[in-house]
Amino acid sequence: MLIVQKFGGTSVGDLERIQNVANRVVKTKKAGNDVVVVVSAMSGETNKLVAYAEHFSKNPSRAEVDMLLSSGERVTASLLAIALSEMGFPAVSMTGRKAGIVTDNIHTKARIEVINPIAMNEAIAEGKIVVVAGFQGVSQDGNVTTLGRGGSDLSAVAIAGAIKADLCEIYTDVSGIFTTDPRIEPKAKKLEHISYDEMLELASLGAKVLQNRSVELAKKLNVNLVTRTSFSDEEGTLITKEENIMEKPLVSGIALDKNQARVSLVGVKDRPGIASDIFTKLSDNNVNIDMIIQNVGHDGKANIDFTVPVSDLNDAKAVMDSFVKESEVDEVSYDENICKVSIVGVGMKSHTGVAAKAFSTMASENININMISTSEIKISMIIAEKYAELAVRALHNAYELDK
Amino acid sequence: MLIVQKFGGTSVGDLERIQNVANRVVKTKKAGNDVVVVVSAMSGETNKLVAYAEHFSKNPSRAEVDMLLSSGERVTASLLAIALSEMGFPAVSMTGRKAGIVTDNIHTKARIEVINPIAMNEAIAEGKIVVVAGFQGVSQDGNVTTLGRGGSDLSAVAIAGAIKADLCEIYTDVSGIFTTDPRIEPKAKKLEHISYDEMLELASLGAKVLQNRSVELAKKLNVNLVTRTSFSDEEGTLITKEENIMEKPLVSGIALDKNQARVSLVGVKDRPGIASDIFTKLSDNNVNIDMIIQNVGHDGKANIDFTVPVSDLNDAKAVMDSFVKESEVDEVSYDENICKVSIVGVGMKSHTGVAAKAFSTMASENININMISTSEIKISMIIAEKYAELAVRALHNAYELDK
Repeated sequence: MLIVQKFGGTSVGDLERIQNVANRVVKTKKAGNDVVVVVSAMSGETNKLVAYAEHFSKNPSRAEVDMLLSSGERVTASLLAIALSEMGFPAVSMTGRKAGIVTDNIHTKARIEVINPIAMNEAIAEGKIVVVAGFQGVSQDGNVTTLGRGGSDLSAVAIAGAIKADLCEIYTDVSGIFTTDPRIEPKAKKLEHISYDEMLELASLGAKVLQNRSVELAKKLNVNLVTRTSFSDEEGTLITKEENIMEKPLVSGIALDKNQARVSLVGVKDRPGIASDIFTKLSDNNVNIDMIIQNVGHDGKANIDFTVPVSDLNDAKAVMDSFVKESEVDEVSYDENICKVSIVGVGMKSHTGVAAKAFSTMASENININMISTSEIKISMIIAEKYAELAVRALHNAYELDK
Repeated sequence: MLIVQKFGGTSVGDLERIQNVANRVVKTKKAGNDVVVVVSAMSGETNKLVAYAEHFSKNPSRAEVDMLLSSGERVTASLLAIALSEMGFPAVSMTGRKAGIVTDNIHTKARIEVINPIAMNEAIAEGKIVVVAGFQGVSQDGNVTTLGRGGSDLSAVAIAGAIKADLCEIYTDVSGIFTTDPRIEPKAKKLEHISYDEMLELASLGAKVLQNRSVELAKKLNVNLVTRTSFSDEEGTLITKEENIMEKPLVSGIALDKNQARVSLVGVKDRPGIASDIFTKLSDNNVNIDMIIQNVGHDGKANIDFTVPVSDLNDAKAVMDSFVKESEVDEVSYDENICKVSIVGVGMKSHTGVAAKAFSTMASENININMISTSEIKISMIIAEKYAELAVRALHNAYELDK
């Protein structure tokens, strides 16, 4: 097999851990695989360099920041290549440039445009282990760029797509994706596999492990992703396309998002286009809207409830104040003490009764449901934050996810 | 004027010192000059990275070492560019690659083949300060290379030649070139200017400041070099071609080299080509020979004395043992307790009596001269090491270098 293995900052945090990574790569190579390794900077390095830049300027040139930050991954890549070669397994390190990773020129958050894997393929053909400095690429005009948060994961997924790797393994300090957060429900089980779409819906479960950007790219490039831990040999979770998963579970996991706030508009003026005006203005002010409920109030005026991330709440308040001032909305109230509980599973597509079970479970725990939204593979409910853990445990039990 | 300013590791050793460098560059720019800055890695960084590499391998791939080490200068270059831009002076950092520094592919001690200063010239034309990562280049096949010890000085000199700079300033923690080592003779004076050839002969005086490689390159490219300190505004020493120095001093300086050992061969077999055999074999074993004296001994056999650097003495001994074993040489003795004192000055070319004064000065101090060698602009004497400092002071005084 051709395998891409990506190791993050904590996995290469010191020289001993880099040696551990080398041992794991060698083990994979010895098992008869070709390996391309993607590495991050040693943990702490990037933050140190950012602090250096901020010492000189609150707003340093993004191109200079990229020049600065891209040095960290070079160091890890060359050290790992040296360690591998010393163990008798010829290895060569490559910068993003050498690996052929071409991006747009949006410095510090560049997007990969194309990968020209000529140098990587040549080295693989020569039997070498390729070690690529993650997080970085080069723009069409030849300047170093970086890919922003989670950039090394993106490098790994994009490379796996470009060289048509059989597997892209993302190593972190978490052993995989669980049916729910084990800190809330100790009976949570690690999933063997999960579809891209479920993973995207379960973002809050996997956020510490994988960013949605990487999962979306893996889906687009049809890359088989595995998340697993670099600190043991434990198997991880395979994220792949739905068709590859033979036995589709009804429900794969329960996600919890406490980072939500509810905005309730009472007495929204009865004129055409008022809802459009409200949500356009929120969007113009970069407020992300999640769920929306509208119902008819008294006097023909409507009530509208919607949820926003807590971090966007102040911006939302400013926008709503202007509507109140212009008498387009009678009254606005805000509630930060809410949370969103979501049930995710591709099996829902073909089975009925999943939603009904969610509602009856909430009812039997005396938890009031404020808002509901559903998609083909997800049911989300807004409830009072104080019931968050209780709801997660009750649902985890109701769908027998510990079995 | 177009000025290249090079700052070494101690000059950019921490963030405060980088800010000091930025202040100095801005001052030069404000005075109406265009400036290209060449920087080393922050002091300690390169050694740290070398230690990392050696943790994994006693003999790491040189290409990987170059990948590793070249990261240090990138960090300094981008930080300085950020600091300069923040001060209102637009600056752009460049890697060796971006600056167009093309080298051969001898990793860790590459030689600069050509510089394509297109990007530098464009940035200068736009009024920008260019900050180049020193010590590094790129080989014709696109891999990062480094230039070895003193590499950043070479970068600066080569860039100054390529962009036809009026001046190339090398900033260190030493304020210039002195008539002799001030620790030996406190009356030593800093030279205003000195010719390339004198500087090369005075290597032992300037070794801490400038390597001969850089002076040789400056001579070849006709670059006006200045060595000065980054810790004060004191003027430095201009190293330029002899024609540029109006008033040529008889003697410019007294150099001392304690790193010499004498090899004395007694009874060298009388056959044609024996001397050639000896010195060819020494050369084949990488022993550097400095002075050679041959005189006729008894029985028609010759005596040969020569000097080698102390570090080459063991290799020389091994070679000489083989000649003794084959009865080509009767006896060999070694003396590490010697030193070489040299008097350097372009004025010697046109004045007689310089050598005579040296010999009479030694005689008046009762110092025995073991060996003598002379060139057009230098007289070197081998004497017992215990007289080293006395000889330097006596000669400094005899040629009135403190005046």
